[in-house]
Amino acid sequence: MKRRELIKAVLGGAALVPLTGCNGDSRPLDSSGGGNTPPPTGDLRADVCVIGAGISGLTAARRCEQKGLSVVVLEANDRVGGRTVNLPLAGGGFIEGGGEWVGPSSQQSAVRALAAELGIETYLAYGQAAGEGNNLMLYRGSRSTFTGEIPLGDPAGLADLLQAQTRWEQMASEIPEGRAWDAPNAHLWDSMTIWEWMQTNMLTDGGKWLLSLIVLLTTAARPEDLSLLFYLEMIAGAGGSFTNLYAKANGAQERRISGGSQRISSRLAEELTGPLVLSSPVSGIDQSNPSSVSVASRRCRVTAKRVIVALHPQDAARLAYAPLLPIERQMLHKNWPTGCAYKLNVVYPTPFWRADGYSGMVISDVFPYFADDNSLPGDPRGLLVCFVGAQHELSSRGIVEDKASRHAAVLNGLATFFGPKALAPLEIVEGNWIEQPWIAGCESPLQPGMLTTFGKSVAARIDRIHWAGTETAGQWKAYMDGAVRAGERAANEVSMLMS
Amino acid sequence: MKRRELIKAVLGGAALVPLTGCNGDSRPLDSSGGGNTPPPTGDLRADVCVIGAGISGLTAARRCEQKGLSVVVLEANDRVGGRTVNLPLAGGGFIEGGGEWVGPSSQQSAVRALAAELGIETYLAYGQAAGEGNNLMLYRGSRSTFTGEIPLGDPAGLADLLQAQTRWEQMASEIPEGRAWDAPNAHLWDSMTIWEWMQTNMLTDGGKWLLSLIVLLTTAARPEDLSLLFYLEMIAGAGGSFTNLYAKANGAQERRISGGSQRISSRLAEELTGPLVLSSPVSGIDQSNPSSVSVASRRCRVTAKRVIVALHPQDAARLAYAPLLPIERQMLHKNWPTGCAYKLNVVYPTPFWRADGYSGMVISDVFPYFADDNSLPGDPRGLLVCFVGAQHELSSRGIVEDKASRHAAVLNGLATFFGPKALAPLEIVEGNWIEQPWIAGCESPLQPGMLTTFGKSVAARIDRIHWAGTETAGQWKAYMDGAVRAGERAANEVSMLMS
Repeated sequence: MKRRELIKAVLGGAALVPLTGCNGDSRPLDSSGGGNTPPPTGDLRADVCVIGAGISGLTAARRCEQKGLSVVVLEANDRVGGRTVNLPLAGGGFIEGGGEWVGPSSQQSAVRALAAELGIETYLAYGQAAGEGNNLMLYRGSRSTFTGEIPLGDPAGLADLLQAQTRWEQMASEIPEGRAWDAPNAHLWDSMTIWEWMQTNMLTDGGKWLLSLIVLLTTAARPEDLSLLFYLEMIAGAGGSFTNLYAKANGAQERRISGGSQRISSRLAEELTGPLVLSSPVSGIDQSNPSSVSVASRRCRVTAKRVIVALHPQDAARLAYAPLLPIERQMLHKNWPTGCAYKLNVVYPTPFWRADGYSGMVISDVFPYFADDNSLPGDPRGLLVCFVGAQHELSSRGIVEDKASRHAAVLNGLATFFGPKALAPLEIVEGNWIEQPWIAGCESPLQPGMLTTFGKSVAARIDRIHWAGTETAGQWKAYMDGAVRAGERAANEVSMLMS
Repeated sequence: MKRRELIKAVLGGAALVPLTGCNGDSRPLDSSGGGNTPPPTGDLRADVCVIGAGISGLTAARRCEQKGLSVVVLEANDRVGGRTVNLPLAGGGFIEGGGEWVGPSSQQSAVRALAAELGIETYLAYGQAAGEGNNLMLYRGSRSTFTGEIPLGDPAGLADLLQAQTRWEQMASEIPEGRAWDAPNAHLWDSMTIWEWMQTNMLTDGGKWLLSLIVLLTTAARPEDLSLLFYLEMIAGAGGSFTNLYAKANGAQERRISGGSQRISSRLAEELTGPLVLSSPVSGIDQSNPSSVSVASRRCRVTAKRVIVALHPQDAARLAYAPLLPIERQMLHKNWPTGCAYKLNVVYPTPFWRADGYSGMVISDVFPYFADDNSLPGDPRGLLVCFVGAQHELSSRGIVEDKASRHAAVLNGLATFFGPKALAPLEIVEGNWIEQPWIAGCESPLQPGMLTTFGKSVAARIDRIHWAGTETAGQWKAYMDGAVRAGERAANEVSMLMS
C-alpha cells in the first residue's frame, strides 16, 4: 500500500475520526511509512516544522510546500482537523462536532478558495430556499415565526437591535484592518464590556436579549464577559457587517462543506509531500542554536529552519521554550481565554419539524436558546443542532455538568419548540470542546483589556517561531476562514525570510 | 544529623533560597532522610496529601497534624514559600521578592496569629513614625509632599477619590462574606470594569489617577482589566474598608516579618512531623479508587484519604485528574487569570533620601509610579522597592521586556524622585513572577464575568480533593492572610470528614 493510499485509508473520504480518540496510538501517517509500525524515534529534518494539524497548520504546510520548502507537521491528537471534526453517526455517516459553516466567497474568500483548490464542494445550509419552512421565535411565552434573518415577533426589540447594529458597524468602520488596538477609541472600547455598552445604548429588553443571543452564538460567551472592542473587531474582520457574522443567507452560516468540514484538513493532509506525525504532542521548542530550531515531540525530534505554531494560545502555552519567550508573549499565554462548549447534534428518524412547516431554526429565551436543522443532504434522518456549556449556562444552571441531565434538558427544550416527537431521538452526538486533552477550547472570547494589551503580540514572530491559528487572523478571526488566512500569512512570513 | 537539624540547615533562619532555583535538585527534605541521597521512589501513605508548600499548603498541613492526621506535603519547587521568597543580597542578608507586608492583627488576624504561634515577630514598615520623613507625590509635573495616607497635592482629585471610596465601601457592605456572587447587585457589578464605573462616577482626572494607582498596586492589573465586583469583594474581605487595602498605618502594609516573609513557610516546614518532598511536581491525582486517592509526583507516589491542592488555579490546571474534574472546575482552570509582575528592590549604600527629609514612599504619574523605603532594620544599606510588568506597562512601553532597559528605566524614575544618587545602586534584586516554572504568577486579577461564573467553584471540594491557596479565601484573598485562612478552612473540611 502506498503512502498516499495509506493516508487516504485513515483520513480520506468519510474520515470517521472520533473527537475523543486521542489515545497516543500510532497511526500509519508518519515518515516511517505504513502499517502499524512502531513510532519513529529518529530525527527528522525540514525547512519548516508546523505544529498543529488543524486547518491553519495544514494550510501553512501546504503553502510552504508550494513555495518549494520542505515541511514536517506534528500533531498531538491522533487525527487532523483541530477544532473541526467529523463525528460518526450510529446509523452510518457523520456530522460535524466543531467548526461547520462557511460564508459566501465574497466574504470568506480564503476558505472558499482553498476548498475549491482541494476539489471540495459546498452547499447551502437548510432553510434558505423557498418552501423550506419558517424559523421560530419564542420570547416571553409567545411564539412567532419568521423567514430570513429578521424575527418580527417583537418589533420594538428588533428596532432596538437594528439601531445598535448600525452604531456598531459605524464604530467597527473606525478599526484599521487587523490592528484593532490602533483604533482611535480602542482604549475606550476595550475598557468596557458589551453588557455595559448595552445598558446605556439600548432601550428594550427584547433588543438586549436578541443582541445577547447573537453574541453568545458567535463567541460562546456572554456580553457580560466580553470586551466591546473584541466584538467590534469581529465585525470589522467580517467585512464591516454585523449581519455577516450572524446571518445564514449571505453570511457566515450560509454554506456547509460536502463531506464535512474536517475534510478540508483531510484533503490538505492527503496532498502533503512531507511527513505528518500524529499522536506526537510537542514538549518544547529550542531555538538557542543560532542557525536552526529544534522541536521535541513524543514520537520524533525535528530540526528545522523555522517553526510555525498553529495552536490556540492556551495550547501553545503548554510547550517549553528555550530561550524563554519574551515576557509579553508569556503573559499572553498565561491569560488568553478559551471558550468551552458542547455542540449537540440530535438525530431523529426524519426531520419531522419540516412537515409542520418549520425550518428547524429557533431562537428562544428558554433553553437551549438556539437550534437549527443540520440534516445531511440525501440522508432520510433529521438532525437538529444546538449548543450547551458556555459560561452562560455554567453560571445559571446545573445542566451542563451531567451528561444525562444535559441531554434531557436539551430534549425538553426541543420538545417545547417542535412537540413531543423531539423527545425520541435516535441518538445525540456531542462535540465536546471542554474535555479535550490537546485542545483548550473552541473559541477565544476576549475580556476587557486583552486586545489592547496582547493583540499586537499574538501574531508577532519570535525569532524563528511564527504563529498561525485562527486567533492570529486579521479577518474572520475564530472562523475557519481566519484559520486559512493565518496559515497563509505564516507561510508567507516564513518563505520571505528564507528566500 | 537529625532530621529537624537538616531541615533547619536548608530552610531555617536566614533561608537564602533563590527564587529561580527550581532545577529539580534533590534536597535533604524528604522522607528518605538527610544528605544528598537519591530521590525516594517508593510509595508514601498518609491521611492527607498536601500539594504545594506555600503558606496556604503548609498551614493546612500543620493544622491537619494538630488534629492528629498524618500528612505528606509535595512541592514542585526546590524551596518552600510559594509566592513568598527571601532573595539574597550581594553584600549579605536578604530581601523579600514576593509577598511581604501584613496588617494589624485586628484585620489580618489569621496570619498574625500564625506568626505568633511560630515565634515570628513583626515590625512597623518604615515611614509611619514621627521623624521618618515625608512621602512624595509627582503629578502633572508638580511635586508635593505629604505624611500618612492622604496626598494633598491635588485636593480636588483627593476629594474625588474619597467620595468614590465612600461609595465603594457602601457597595462592599452589601456583599455577603465569602459569597460575592450572592450580592444583590452581583450581576451588575461583575458585568462592568472598574474603569467603566470610574467614567460615570468620578469627576476629576486626579481622582481617577489616584484610584487607578491604588488598584494597580493592590492587584497588579488596571481598572480597565478588572471586574468591579472583584474589587468590591476585596474591600469586603478587608473588613469593609478600602483604606485597609492601601494604607500602611492600620492597613495591609503596616508591618513586616522579622526574618522575611518566607520565614513563615520555613518555620511551618520545620515543625512538620510528616515528610515534605521538594522538587517533586505532581503530575496527577487519581481518585477513581472509592476509598483512597493516589497522587503521582516526580519523586514519589502518595496514597492518602484526602488531598489538599494549595496552588494557584492555573498551576492546579497543569495536573491530570482521574476521573475528569467537573466541567465547571475544568473551565475555571482554563480561564482563571494570573497577574504577572517583577518586584524590584534597588539597593544603595545608604538610605540617602532620608537625609533629604523623604520617607522613600512615592506616588507618581511617571514611571515607576510607586516606590517605598524597604530598608532592613539594623542594616546600613538603603533599599527602595517598586514594581514593573503588570499589563499596564506591557500595553504602553517596551521597558518590561529587556532586563537592562527595565533597570535603567527604574533608576531614571528613582532619580526623578530622589536625585542622581539614585542612579548608582549597589545592585537590583528582582522578584520575577513572570517566568517561574511552577508558579503561574503573583495575583489573580479577575475580569468581568469570572466571579459570578466561577466564584462559588473555586473552594468547592470535589470528592476527596479540597482546595486551598489564597484564591479560595473568603477574606483577604490574594494576601498572605488569605492564604492562612484558606489553609485552615481546608484542614477543617478534611478533619470534619475524617472524624
